Amino acid sequence: MPVPTISWEGGQDGHARLIDQTLLPDTYQVVDCRTAEEMWDAIRRLVVRGAPAIGVAAAFGAYLGIQRSAARTGGELLAELERVCEYVATARPTAVNLFWALARMRRVASDNRELPAAALRRRLFEEATAILEEDRAICRRLGEVGAPLIRDGGAYVTHCNAGGLATADFGTALAVFYSAKDHGKRFQVYADETRPLLQGARLTAWELAQSGVAVTVICDGMAASLMRSRRIDAVFVGADRIARNGDTANKIGTYGLALVARAHEVPFYVVAPVSTFDLTLEHGGLIPIEERDPAEVTRWGGRRVAPEGVPVWNPAFDVTPASLIAGIVTECGLIERPSAERVSAVIGARHPAS
Amino acid sequence: MPVPTISWEGGQDGHARLIDQTLLPDTYQVVDCRTAEEMWDAIRRLVVRGAPAIGVAAAFGAYLGIQRSAARTGGELLAELERVCEYVATARPTAVNLFWALARMRRVASDNRELPAAALRRRLFEEATAILEEDRAICRRLGEVGAPLIRDGGAYVTHCNAGGLATADFGTALAVFYSAKDHGKRFQVYADETRPLLQGARLTAWELAQSGVAVTVICDGMAASLMRSRRIDAVFVGADRIARNGDTANKIGTYGLALVARAHEVPFYVVAPVSTFDLTLEHGGLIPIEERDPAEVTRWGGRRVAPEGVPVWNPAFDVTPASLIAGIVTECGLIERPSAERVSAVIGARHPAS
Repeated sequence: MPVPTISWEGGQDGHARLIDQTLLPDTYQVVDCRTAEEMWDAIRRLVVRGAPAIGVAAAFGAYLGIQRSAARTGGELLAELERVCEYVATARPTAVNLFWALARMRRVASDNRELPAAALRRRLFEEATAILEEDRAICRRLGEVGAPLIRDGGAYVTHCNAGGLATADFGTALAVFYSAKDHGKRFQVYADETRPLLQGARLTAWELAQSGVAVTVICDGMAASLMRSRRIDAVFVGADRIARNGDTANKIGTYGLALVARAHEVPFYVVAPVSTFDLTLEHGGLIPIEERDPAEVTRWGGRRVAPEGVPVWNPAFDVTPASLIAGIVTECGLIERPSAERVSAVIGARHPAS
Repeated sequence: MPVPTISWEGGQDGHARLIDQTLLPDTYQVVDCRTAEEMWDAIRRLVVRGAPAIGVAAAFGAYLGIQRSAARTGGELLAELERVCEYVATARPTAVNLFWALARMRRVASDNRELPAAALRRRLFEEATAILEEDRAICRRLGEVGAPLIRDGGAYVTHCNAGGLATADFGTALAVFYSAKDHGKRFQVYADETRPLLQGARLTAWELAQSGVAVTVICDGMAASLMRSRRIDAVFVGADRIARNGDTANKIGTYGLALVARAHEVPFYVVAPVSTFDLTLEHGGLIPIEERDPAEVTRWGGRRVAPEGVPVWNPAFDVTPASLIAGIVTECGLIERPSAERVSAVIGARHPAS
């Protein structure tokens, strides 16, 4: 990525800085978040998006909420942090990384409640920064694990933006492409535009083109025709939450793409850090699906595209059953033909909630 | 339909009038076409669209091209008409109704070349008008044949706009809904928005809502999730061209929708007049697919949604194999599980090219 999606400026007393992804590719603009409320709003409005980046943003949001706290003891600061975390958690109900990052911040506060407030505040700042640094390292590792799946001369489809803009660095699904490119492979990526918010056209096409990967934009409804008319080697997508059995929630349209890939015998891969797994959920039917504002569908560029008053169904995510997934690329390795047993075998001991 | 999609104003010396569908649902505006060039432009720019309406528009376009001819003999007028038809045929290369309507105009001119030019001109005006009137009658018949497939209380998905706005009257796929409603059935229709040109959100939602049919707009990538989470009884779509074996070319996204329907055991119906069949084509692989301007995908409402210079693949149609089609509703009856034999059995003798 040419520019960091999310960063922290100015040490412990500083602030978070985000690329405003709602304005890309027209306008490159950064947003500074100095309060938990500003970060809540940035997460909600999709200024920052993508599961890993949301995790980093949530951790910084929690820290911002106690950055100027008047608490005198660690216990008081812990109580404040708990309230801030509850608030930040309401920004996006499906993104498990958000809850995971907040749980990590809470655990640090809880484990260190005996510290003076100032020392605990420093410890929380270090934890949020560590989440950012770890995300960078995980992105690189995802790319290394997935790169062997890319064929020199191959053609691939991706959906939404599981790229550098979705993380603090290299991305998840797109990390596989970046890493394969670094290994000297040449290939073609087709980016689903991904309605309603067009993250594929706006963000994936932008960052792949910036990085010198050959990318062609298609509308979501063209993927089936593409697979019938040209050789497509595989599909790579990210994930917002993965159940214990491998069922995967990701951006709406992913499940249909997986069905279309299966019909054409094109392998379908999910690329996600271990933190995306929610081992408390037995299967994907238990993943809550956020429904978003109909105006995301009915308006574009200030103009109505559907008649006034017509109802809209606008789920933000869908669930792809594990049976349609050829493999899940994680930083711990590739989980082939995922099932509860195979997920557990690869990531069991390393899961942050274990 | 509350207003006619295409009509003729003012008798033999008059002109064609179209609803400008590129401006719906924001603005209702009519466009008058007084020359073949104006009609060519209207067809090309999708001011008028939908296979049957394009047929009517092409016939009037051909007539407009010879309306003020100085030809003195029928033979001279025939030669002029041939040139006009060749020109009008270049407006949309996939729409078989366009060629069919032009062939009909040419045949009338050829069969009546012995008439004086003025009489032949009148005869050609009558033929174009007859094509319009026949389209109206066919729409009503399609509705009657298809209505028994609608269940009271059912839920249906449609793609693009195969409605009154695609024809001179009741539509094709939507005629089934209008007719079922006239029979007192109540049901829910989900309209795919249909990228890139959003005919579903702009046109289908508009005309169904105007007619009192319950309609909900979804993005194309949501259909799979919809079928998994709610009971959907069937899919109804129109067609731009149907090969002898039942393979059907329709708006891009139709094939993916058919695959998704099959995966959920939802019956998939095509609704089309007999004139949509191209019996010269053995199978759908022989149907030429128009590729349209990338700007349809990359720009919306004057704003770029994909980065400058990124390539786009923008096929206007795809082909759904007959094996995915539960039935084709025609004015001659329902062709169940279409095959070359079944198509021939239902429409063989009635096909206009037979």
